[in-house]
Amino acid sequence: MHEPILLTPGPLTTTRDTKSAMLVDWGSWDGAFNQLTASVCHDLLEIVHAEETHACVPLQGSGTFAVEAALGTLVPKSGKVLVTDNGAYCKRIVRILQYLGRETIVLEHAEDSPADPERIGAALRADPAITHVAQVHCETGTGILNPLPAIAAVVAAHHRKLIVDAMSSYAAIAIDARELPFDALIAASGKCLEGVPGMGFVIARRTALERAAGQCHSLALDLYDQWQYMQKTGQWRYTPPTHVVAALRAAIDQFRAEGGQPARFNRYTSNCRALVSGMRALGLATFLPDALQAPIIVTFHSPAHPAYQFSEFYRRVRERGFILYPGKLTAVDTFRVGCIGAIDHTVIERAVAAVAAVLAEMGVKAAA
Amino acid sequence: MHEPILLTPGPLTTTRDTKSAMLVDWGSWDGAFNQLTASVCHDLLEIVHAEETHACVPLQGSGTFAVEAALGTLVPKSGKVLVTDNGAYCKRIVRILQYLGRETIVLEHAEDSPADPERIGAALRADPAITHVAQVHCETGTGILNPLPAIAAVVAAHHRKLIVDAMSSYAAIAIDARELPFDALIAASGKCLEGVPGMGFVIARRTALERAAGQCHSLALDLYDQWQYMQKTGQWRYTPPTHVVAALRAAIDQFRAEGGQPARFNRYTSNCRALVSGMRALGLATFLPDALQAPIIVTFHSPAHPAYQFSEFYRRVRERGFILYPGKLTAVDTFRVGCIGAIDHTVIERAVAAVAAVLAEMGVKAAA
Repeated sequence: MHEPILLTPGPLTTTRDTKSAMLVDWGSWDGAFNQLTASVCHDLLEIVHAEETHACVPLQGSGTFAVEAALGTLVPKSGKVLVTDNGAYCKRIVRILQYLGRETIVLEHAEDSPADPERIGAALRADPAITHVAQVHCETGTGILNPLPAIAAVVAAHHRKLIVDAMSSYAAIAIDARELPFDALIAASGKCLEGVPGMGFVIARRTALERAAGQCHSLALDLYDQWQYMQKTGQWRYTPPTHVVAALRAAIDQFRAEGGQPARFNRYTSNCRALVSGMRALGLATFLPDALQAPIIVTFHSPAHPAYQFSEFYRRVRERGFILYPGKLTAVDTFRVGCIGAIDHTVIERAVAAVAAVLAEMGVKAAA
Repeated sequence: MHEPILLTPGPLTTTRDTKSAMLVDWGSWDGAFNQLTASVCHDLLEIVHAEETHACVPLQGSGTFAVEAALGTLVPKSGKVLVTDNGAYCKRIVRILQYLGRETIVLEHAEDSPADPERIGAALRADPAITHVAQVHCETGTGILNPLPAIAAVVAAHHRKLIVDAMSSYAAIAIDARELPFDALIAASGKCLEGVPGMGFVIARRTALERAAGQCHSLALDLYDQWQYMQKTGQWRYTPPTHVVAALRAAIDQFRAEGGQPARFNRYTSNCRALVSGMRALGLATFLPDALQAPIIVTFHSPAHPAYQFSEFYRRVRERGFILYPGKLTAVDTFRVGCIGAIDHTVIERAVAAVAAVLAEMGVKAAA
């Protein structure tokens, strides 16, 4: 029985070594597990060169839990947040801020337009009450890469604070905290680090954390409290997902052995190229132009042919061993294919061959 | 290399089969994973006979996340909660309610006194504004068993709603929703079900959930939203801890094969008896009288002997293959030993022998 390959934005296909790290039960109070947590947090800081300025606060749950924790802990009740919106995960941030009752301004963009630093600068100039900018780095809804360095520069120039959802870019796309100022950067175990899902983490500026006591709306999501407790005890406040943490340790070891972020970027870029060129050869068009495409997940227009139906297409490609992902756009009919996980371009080439065979079986002719 | 046995309240020692279930990567959008989730939720309802009346809403994160989610989703902002307090997990509920800004009345008990249904009834009679009672079933801080059936009866007689933290009793101690009325009962994957940690769940009365739209303070912890989305799509709202869910499926299969809750209760009771009689033979005294002791975790007084020191005792017992747990009482010096996990009384007997050897090595004479 061959497990299907996950061509999705996470959970991903992980290596056997990563999964095998879960074959041990760890005591959450035990010194050995505290060391595991500390070593993971150390490496998560190092990957974005934030050891001098920031702390890594891990959190139980999915990435969204960590995004809400960062917003709830770091934005004071009197704060006002500018959210650039070019996709589903930007909209999720807006929804979180509504739950939190934080004043929010949404800077709408088309889903195929990268967040515009000039518009952000203009919005900050126009409204001195804005305290924070919340920015998604790679918007997984489409796969678009937002120009984070230019956005961070304009936010800093206006002396506002930046909170980055780097869920699907962290560890794959270069982020250097020494040059790119942010108060918080959020990611999770099950994305480009190629761990298994179950924990998020926030790389938070220590001076911002220090000011955040008593701000959070939630005990479970209070990053300040989690940070303080961890500093005092070396332990998580509440039961950690011990096996997930152990898998992440193994995944980071493999990430470093591969050559770190540059190597991962290169592998994903090679995957993305193989995917895009292969699918185009089948007549399938990408939603984004290549210049805006992050090598993480690619949105394709659904074939306009009457014989095409996503659920049947999905089922047949799955039978051939590959799990695709539905589109997340409201206006256009699309599907998505991930480039990330413990796979290389030869796997992608086999996936493209499976797509070709299925389209032929279904009698779907994609417009060339 | 022999892994140490975890004699803690969770994470626990789990079986090889449970851990091996994590050697597969599941797509979180895929039909096969949706079926896995549905089958787990079905069984979690069945274990407490709640299929007719309640829904099972799983949640990412530790058990505390699920406790906060239940309180935040089900207690309206105008609600008032009576919390009986006889230990650390009761106090955690009070702290959550403070974060939520819900009016709270605390009914203080000594840590060695079970929650008193008569006092609860008197408090409800005295204050008609109380809408909910929050009750910990087995208080893990000491190991005391609170009389849940009598408490549920008195709460129902006063037409108030009951929210039960059954974190460390669920699946080990009988709970029957057909006879014991509750609006929510909360537990987690990594306790007496003997799964791995990483997800909680709430067995919530469907009529209570239906009234809970828009009540929650948090998007990530909004059980109503999670429930609605799951009903519509069969999927979790945000990335689920797929490997943890798969391990829980395997753990529930083993739970059923063992004979379900009665068999688990018997095994843990046998573990608890072996532990208590063995430790008493060494001169170590339990904090609770036997009549109040749940067969989950036992609190022992630390030996009063000057050669005793917990960290050294812990280290040496660990070297012999057993991980103990620190005490959680403020007034008395104690340590705790768990009876739960994939272990039987012969393991406990070996642990007691290890404790005996270590006390002898350290020159500690416990008062007989």
